[in-house]
Order: sequence, then C-alpha cells, then structure tokens
Amino acid sequence: MASKKISMAVIKRLPRYHRYLNYLLELGIKRVSSKELSTRMGITASQIRQDLNCFGGFGQQGYGYNVESLYTEIGNILGINKTFNCIIIGAGNMGQALANYGNFEKRGFSIIAVFDVNTSIIGKKIKDLEIRDLNDIDDFVLENKVDIAMLCVPYRETAGLADRVAKLGVKGLWNFSPMDLKIPYDVIVENVHLSDSLMVLGYKLNDKFSRE
Amino acid sequence: MASKKISMAVIKRLPRYHRYLNYLLELGIKRVSSKELSTRMGITASQIRQDLNCFGGFGQQGYGYNVESLYTEIGNILGINKTFNCIIIGAGNMGQALANYGNFEKRGFSIIAVFDVNTSIIGKKIKDLEIRDLNDIDDFVLENKVDIAMLCVPYRETAGLADRVAKLGVKGLWNFSPMDLKIPYDVIVENVHLSDSLMVLGYKLNDKFSRE
Repeated sequence: MASKKISMAVIKRLPRYHRYLNYLLELGIKRVSSKELSTRMGITASQIRQDLNCFGGFGQQGYGYNVESLYTEIGNILGINKTFNCIIIGAGNMGQALANYGNFEKRGFSIIAVFDVNTSIIGKKIKDLEIRDLNDIDDFVLENKVDIAMLCVPYRETAGLADRVAKLGVKGLWNFSPMDLKIPYDVIVENVHLSDSLMVLGYKLNDKFSRE
Repeated sequence: MASKKISMAVIKRLPRYHRYLNYLLELGIKRVSSKELSTRMGITASQIRQDLNCFGGFGQQGYGYNVESLYTEIGNILGINKTFNCIIIGAGNMGQALANYGNFEKRGFSIIAVFDVNTSIIGKKIKDLEIRDLNDIDDFVLENKVDIAMLCVPYRETAGLADRVAKLGVKGLWNFSPMDLKIPYDVIVENVHLSDSLMVLGYKLNDKFSRE
C-alpha cells in the first residue's frame, strides 16, 4: 500500500495515543482493542480505528492492537527517535518550568541553553544549565545546532526575538506569549495559549452549572 | 432570532478572537472586516463570518465588525464578566508560573490560594499569596467558594487530588499532569498537555525540513 500523507488533525491526536500506549506498556498490557482504548481515552472506537488506519496501524479482528508495535510506530511518525536541540529564551517562571520539565528530554527534545536579560539571574543554574546572557544568543545559535527556540518572554519582546533567532536559522518556534506569531521566515511556529484553555473551562462551567 | 447553542468548535476559537480584538482595541482600531481579521489571524474570512454569525455577531456590508461591541459580546459568551475563584495545587515551577501570570486575573480568574506538601516552601509567598499546607485544603475548600482547581502536581498524585477536591464540590479542574483525568464526579476537566504541542512541532519540523 502506498504511504499516504497523514492529515494534521490525525497528527495532533497522535501524541495522545502515544501517551496512552506508554501508560499501557508500563502496566504490562500487551494488546488492546479499539473499544478498550475508546473507553480509556474518551474517543469513539470508530474514530480510533479511522485514525490508526491512516498510517497502516491495523488492529486484527479478535486480537486488537499490539501495544508495543503501535507505540513504536506512532513514535516513529512523530519523530521521537530524533533529537531536537532546544533553547529557552526567558528564564522567568514559565521558562524555568520548561527547563525543569523532565518529560521533554525523554521525547527527544534536549534543552541545551537558557537565556535571559536579567543580570541578577544570569550565571545561576537551572538543573545543570547555566542561565546565559541574552546578548550572547547570536553567537550561541551560530556555533550550535539549534532546532527549536522556546519563547517565554513578555509579549512585547516576543516578535523581535522570534525574528532574531529565525534569521539565524532556527526553524522551530514554540511560543508562549499571548499573541500568535507571524514572521516572514520559513519557520514552523506552535503557539501555546494557556489562557485560551482556561477560558474554555470557564465557558463550560458557566454553561453547565449556569452560575449567576 | 432564537438564540441557538454554539458548537464547542466555535467556542474553542472564541478566546483567540477575543485576544485579537483586544489587541485591535489597544491599537485604537474601531472596526475591522472579516478579510482584515483573516489576514491577521490566519483563519479564512469565510470561517470567520461563519463563526461570528453563530452568535449573531453580524458584520455590516461595507463596514465590517464594530471591534468594541464584538469584543464585549465574545467576552459575555465566554463569561469574562464573571469571577471564578481558583486554587493552585502544587507550587512547583508550573504552579508558580500560573500564580505569577497576571493575565488570568484580567479574564476573571482569581487565584485565591496555593497549596503544596513541601514544608520548605509552605509559608513562603508568591506575589501576595502565602503557600499553604496541602493538609489544610479540605477546610479551605469548605470555607471558601472554589470554582476551579489548577492541578500542578506530579502525575501519580493528580487523580487522587482531583478526586479529593471534586468530592468537596470544586466543579472545574485544570489539569497539567500528562494523563487525561477521568473522575466519577460531575465536574468539568480541561487538560493541558504541553508535550503534545511540542511533539506536533517536532513532527512538522521533520515533515517540512526532513532532517535525517
């Protein structure tokens, strides 16, 4: 069967499958039906079959999916077996939270440097990484292979910094500032808007419990 | 026209419209066409018209949308004018990042307490909030109106704590642990999975620049 392009909608659900399959592996579960996955994940079984069929992850009638091979296959599609070198720009709370978050490393995202402008924290360490002076970022990016910049700086400074690292050749930007980034370079941007998720939670609370 | 139920897909896009309209207001822009919004937001103009028509936010031919009234209307739908009392459970980096994030307050999410188990930080302050002993959480929730618990504790402890506060009557859970929460109470859960977003970024980088 010719491999076909997997839609972005499916791709966006793959990390979730990957997490669940990892969890099943940890529990020692070797096979799972689409129905069991459906119950655990809160996605319909037909959606699951459709998603997994997209990349040839066919379950067998009466057997279900082999947890380990499905886990490996999804990991391969997501590029888990590759390593991305990442830098964090902005060592405030969010930057520090990301630097301390062990799960990224396990998924192939290696944080190799943290930058800030605040002289009172430059030189201090987060885990084994010294916080560097933002003035040195250009040299650092030119001397090291940097795949992803995680932008954790105030909103007003985000676009300028995104522009700066993109010009230096960084191809991936993970943006935590409240405004979606658009920059005139050939880069991939993923925006994380925590407030949006909280506002949806607020909406659902209002809608369901009609608090007045 | 009878008001109709707005679909969750539209609701999920509303915070983004709200952010953009706020930005336009700050720039002193009074009206905007769906085409201009489309260019700024990277959503098609027809999608924008369709989304905004859902709740009667009709633009006028040749005039566009009144920025301020659209902003207000979307805010009303999202319940921005209401206040939600929130507590943060877990004062690690993510909990501290949330406690320090000023934008939530502006959107009606008031953080009224932070809890942790770590005796070396209990009693310390984050902004004007003292970190409280997690042992006191039951009394606090019973004595105060708590709408939302923000769960920033390690994965293994999340389900138990979610269960504990849900039993006490907290109706909204904002979960930052890597596993989706399912608990047998009548609560609303929004999960934030930062790794998922990063994995999608990694996939797109591989796909576009085919790094090998």
